[in-house]
Amino acid sequence: MDDATADLLATLRSERPVVQCLTNSVVQGFTANVLLALGAAPAMVEIPGEAGVMADAAGGVLINLGTLHGDQPTAMVEAAASAHASGTPWVLDPVGIGALPVRTHLATTLLAHQPTAIRGNASEILALAGSGAGARGVDSTDDADTAADAADELARRTNAIVAVSGASDLITDGERIVRVPGGDTLLTRVTGTGCSLGAVCAAFLAVTDERFATVTAAHTVFARAAEDAATRAAGPGTFAMHLLDALSHW
Amino acid sequence: MDDATADLLATLRSERPVVQCLTNSVVQGFTANVLLALGAAPAMVEIPGEAGVMADAAGGVLINLGTLHGDQPTAMVEAAASAHASGTPWVLDPVGIGALPVRTHLATTLLAHQPTAIRGNASEILALAGSGAGARGVDSTDDADTAADAADELARRTNAIVAVSGASDLITDGERIVRVPGGDTLLTRVTGTGCSLGAVCAAFLAVTDERFATVTAAHTVFARAAEDAATRAAGPGTFAMHLLDALSHW
Amino acid sequence: MDDATADLLATLRSERPVVQCLTNSVVQGFTANVLLALGAAPAMVEIPGEAGVMADAAGGVLINLGTLHGDQPTAMVEAAASAHASGTPWVLDPVGIGALPVRTHLATTLLAHQPTAIRGNASEILALAGSGAGARGVDSTDDADTAADAADELARRTNAIVAVSGASDLITDGERIVRVPGGDTLLTRVTGTGCSLGAVCAAFLAVTDERFATVTAAHTVFARAAEDAATRAAGPGTFAMHLLDALSHW
Repeated sequence: MDDATADLLATLRSERPVVQCLTNSVVQGFTANVLLALGAAPAMVEIPGEAGVMADAAGGVLINLGTLHGDQPTAMVEAAASAHASGTPWVLDPVGIGALPVRTHLATTLLAHQPTAIRGNASEILALAGSGAGARGVDSTDDADTAADAADELARRTNAIVAVSGASDLITDGERIVRVPGGDTLLTRVTGTGCSLGAVCAAFLAVTDERFATVTAAHTVFARAAEDAATRAAGPGTFAMHLLDALSHW
Repeated sequence: MDDATADLLATLRSERPVVQCLTNSVVQGFTANVLLALGAAPAMVEIPGEAGVMADAAGGVLINLGTLHGDQPTAMVEAAASAHASGTPWVLDPVGIGALPVRTHLATTLLAHQPTAIRGNASEILALAGSGAGARGVDSTDDADTAADAADELARRTNAIVAVSGASDLITDGERIVRVPGGDTLLTRVTGTGCSLGAVCAAFLAVTDERFATVTAAHTVFARAAEDAATRAAGPGTFAMHLLDALSHW
Repeated sequence: MDDATADLLATLRSERPVVQCLTNSVVQGFTANVLLALGAAPAMVEIPGEAGVMADAAGGVLINLGTLHGDQPTAMVEAAASAHASGTPWVLDPVGIGALPVRTHLATTLLAHQPTAIRGNASEILALAGSGAGARGVDSTDDADTAADAADELARRTNAIVAVSGASDLITDGERIVRVPGGDTLLTRVTGTGCSLGAVCAAFLAVTDERFATVTAAHTVFARAAEDAATRAAGPGTFAMHLLDALSHW
């Protein structure tokens, strides 16, 4: 990890930002544990009437479309609008859009509230940019680079940092492009690793205005922690646990 | 593990079927991790308007009644109807029916959409067959064999494979009956082991038409992985983690 | 652990009470695993029409306001009313009240159904007693002792045992006050440790009428298990797993 990334992580641990997550019910627990391990403070507030209040007060917000249910979509729009109005950085993770109609429509609505960053796999970024067929489930069927042009176009159009997950992650602001290699294939065998990386981006964005460098740093910290965890793991169960330990040690 | 079971597992890992889970919120994360460890691709899609689309596209579907909330019941009926119409195999896990009115009524509604398999503990199978008093919570108060006659009758009436969990699991198609011994008592000290076994059944059913042998194979793989995990565990926390590792190794 | 606490734990394991949890979706899985490790039987029933039936039949009930959604608030009022009417002990965990309007209003409504115990961090107890500004997220910003007077007043006004979590936990019935020291700072790096302690209180209250001693015993068992787990942990991931193991060994 370079000095700038280490400094950013030290700042995060010192400020301990509150990260509001309106996320996928499958990964709420793991996401909260990732944020706590890293040194941030999770707040999973997603009922209408509270979602906007929290987004105004939080350091960062994650909106992940993985398991929409009930009035969660309403709360997401409320939170995105509040975050945008109050200047709270927020991250959109458009899980599974493309083939699935409710979330695809919602993603477009949320884009109007100008996410600070957008994070997804190649299928999802292609779908959000209007050029993809959508995912088969929530897992990616494309390498990150297949969505490079779509990510670039999406970043320029929305003014968001766009991050595409893959064997090597790709991050662009529409002008610059970086790739964060590494991580480990075990990341694909544990649910919520990508989703929690979105929360980690929101946590880092809470402590600095350098958006492009910050999203890159978040990906770097996560990839390095995954590599560390993989050296101790005997499979996906032990990997998930060591990943949390590793995030707390860096 | 016999050769036929090993072949089936190899097929599953090669095809990596998408398994849609409309399940209990307590165990969503663990269930997704079990599927990923095994080699399948979880998709927890349960909002009306998407549930049916996903059930049509998925390789298999699990519907688990453990924690009904909001419009989840509507999505379940939509998914079951779509799965039945499109020939997607689907598994019903009637968690806690009998004493609890909303889910008991819903289970009967779902039966009309002809599940490929039904998996539950003895209390639940007795209740679904119309001969039991229902569970005290979500845990079984009966040995699997106390529901043998009810399972047999239910299998003949519904044309589903019926699996009853217990110290030794019992599986029947209304003509044949097999028992899968083994597993470990630690399975009863970790939430979601039974629920994720239902998802494992759906994953295996996605890759073959041999329904009876397949549900039996799913139970065998799970029991062997549990035995392996138990040799490494010092309690339920370590057991859950080693179970995921073991499922990825077999 | 003193003899009285050990006896209470033995009783709990022998009776294996059903503990209904209407709780925060982030921590449902961990809470269920804590109850199972301890020797109780979790039942996460939270749909209107079933919540009251279950509260009548259960040994104890936990109502935790962490992630209100959909009709969960309706189910909570139904469960609290049923528990009160049938004499089932119930525990209120007013997560995040104060700054967030929906849950703050709901907490007041629930108080009318006379919780047996109230468990929260200092911010939440201050807010419930009417003297605090509310939490910044779901984590405490105050030491337990800063809420000592508020807890005392709240216990006298509501006739509930009031427990305040902190580096040292504080428990009062409005006359007596005890402090349970120990635990480990890793408890603050794993989501759901406080929430699951509320469920542990409900489990213990299910097996005895000695309310003050019982809530104290629940805190003691949890703190000792955390200390044991901390000696084996290399970070929050391994700690959570060893905590479950430790709860099953005591």
